[in-house]
Amino acid sequence: MPQLRKNPVTREWVVVAQERSRRPGEFQVPCEDPSDLPEHKQQCPFCAGNESQTPPELLAYRPDGGAPNSPNWTVRVVPNKFPALKMEGDLARRGQGMYDSMNGIGSHEVVVETPEHNQSLATLSRERCADVLWAARERFIDLSADRKFKYILFFRNHGVVAGASIEHPHSQIIALPIVPLDVLAEVEGMGTYAEYRDRCPYCDMVTQESDLKDRIVFETENYLIFEPFASKFAFETWVVPKRHQNSFTELERPEMLELSDAIQGSLRRIDRCLNFPPYNLAMHSLPVNTSRPEDFHWHIQISPRLTVAAGLEMGTGVYINATSPEEAARYLRDAAE
Amino acid sequence: MPQLRKNPVTREWVVVAQERSRRPGEFQVPCEDPSDLPEHKQQCPFCAGNESQTPPELLAYRPDGGAPNSPNWTVRVVPNKFPALKMEGDLARRGQGMYDSMNGIGSHEVVVETPEHNQSLATLSRERCADVLWAARERFIDLSADRKFKYILFFRNHGVVAGASIEHPHSQIIALPIVPLDVLAEVEGMGTYAEYRDRCPYCDMVTQESDLKDRIVFETENYLIFEPFASKFAFETWVVPKRHQNSFTELERPEMLELSDAIQGSLRRIDRCLNFPPYNLAMHSLPVNTSRPEDFHWHIQISPRLTVAAGLEMGTGVYINATSPEEAARYLRDAAE
Repeated sequence: MPQLRKNPVTREWVVVAQERSRRPGEFQVPCEDPSDLPEHKQQCPFCAGNESQTPPELLAYRPDGGAPNSPNWTVRVVPNKFPALKMEGDLARRGQGMYDSMNGIGSHEVVVETPEHNQSLATLSRERCADVLWAARERFIDLSADRKFKYILFFRNHGVVAGASIEHPHSQIIALPIVPLDVLAEVEGMGTYAEYRDRCPYCDMVTQESDLKDRIVFETENYLIFEPFASKFAFETWVVPKRHQNSFTELERPEMLELSDAIQGSLRRIDRCLNFPPYNLAMHSLPVNTSRPEDFHWHIQISPRLTVAAGLEMGTGVYINATSPEEAARYLRDAAE
Repeated sequence: MPQLRKNPVTREWVVVAQERSRRPGEFQVPCEDPSDLPEHKQQCPFCAGNESQTPPELLAYRPDGGAPNSPNWTVRVVPNKFPALKMEGDLARRGQGMYDSMNGIGSHEVVVETPEHNQSLATLSRERCADVLWAARERFIDLSADRKFKYILFFRNHGVVAGASIEHPHSQIIALPIVPLDVLAEVEGMGTYAEYRDRCPYCDMVTQESDLKDRIVFETENYLIFEPFASKFAFETWVVPKRHQNSFTELERPEMLELSDAIQGSLRRIDRCLNFPPYNLAMHSLPVNTSRPEDFHWHIQISPRLTVAAGLEMGTGVYINATSPEEAARYLRDAAE
């Protein structure tokens, strides 16, 4: 019997296959293994030596020194050359009859995660992965200072099926002048839960998942990595800090190493288990510069793109998940190094 | 400058490209032209003569008579052989610690739209298309009588990219024991708008779009076909009845012919303009058997799947639409027969 399961924060219902879950090998998705690629591509704007092909960098780490926009960097953040939103101008909020609009003001940045074309966030050393996260943190803090931004998203698209238009390993940071409804639903859902129970739902999840153990993939000292009860996607994996923490920007540099272990451990298991599937990774964090509730429990959601969202998902937002989170967790536990 | 536009009902913000919209030929999607297929496939469970390969039919039209589950039908509705939800059993709502779940009780039916493998809803005669809609209406009414169902969705996935796992032209009907959050957002958004303005937002849209004309694709006596102001998808097309009507089940048989013209006119223009792209079509209608607000303005949304939802869409629900609705409407107007 399939099961309907409710996300305790957003209150979304998900259909979860129970009797006969789809096994890892049963999904037909392209293998997006970066190690199949060359280490350097002449025409890739993100490869070392091609720095002039991007807009001037916003931030870069050059452990051995060097001028801005020269090679010898390890991580490099540049404005997106084809940004979804633009930095210049004012919002010019206006009505058009019954409709409301504003200028698409915002920031759209690319974090080039490594000069090497054939790496991924999963294959970098933990120090280099921590550099990527630290760069994201720096940009996040910098963008938060601009009071017209209300939400900042750090995310990663891996593979063509997940929307990656450039092969070179990179993640992105988008700052929006609005709080997206899905974010608002999460923030308000947390608030409603907290009001009813005087506890944070993510703290409760950490406790309940730790007790039950059947959805846990692995854990580190400070992070629980598990398949959420109401997973929308097969093999959806969350990285949740065990202690209540509003934002990943509160982490200090040494703590990023442990977060790298949590993220890389998740991605490597997903790669091994599902043969380098396409996925999206998104950092869920508190809106900025708003008078909204100030409390949140940040976390990371990794969503492998193994099936296609079709009419039911598009028409109602109800997702069908073909692999139960309990089975997915078992497969991912078995995919340890 | 890109524009942020707000859906006046759901209040979702969408990023709409303005300066340089993507033209129809610039999207890289597979051509899903059914006329490339054979008229009959031996192994297709929905082709004429293979009726025994589906569960027993729930409804069929046989203008020349004939026994159930025999050939000579024009439209045939059968239970999905691999249903996402199951009919038998009770809901057994229960808590699992902090989580809530229930059995996946529901209905999942397939409307086989024609015995011919190489047709589509767009290529059928208007009478046959009206038959498909009439069959959907009959099933909708029948399913509504089951008081455990709270929402019924009639939808169509066209093409592999849009989630169609079977090639043969078909649509689907899913009945759910819950009101999906997205539906609730639409119903409540309508209510909020109506409370504030004492008018229905879809009636207002019909008026404003008729005045402005720049987003209209075409119209029939009773339907306006336009690209919505805050289109989430490039070439997203809505079929909206001009007069306020709660449900498409209120239509009488002759009126289905005009609705066929509206739907087929939309699909044929999309096929011509975008070279038979994958798409999802969804009927937006009022929840059933609930004490929710009883007022709604039904409509149909057609969403071509020209780009991939990536990290921003997955992480926040904010969509980037690479073609402005005004330009899309112009292309679709030019794609008249």
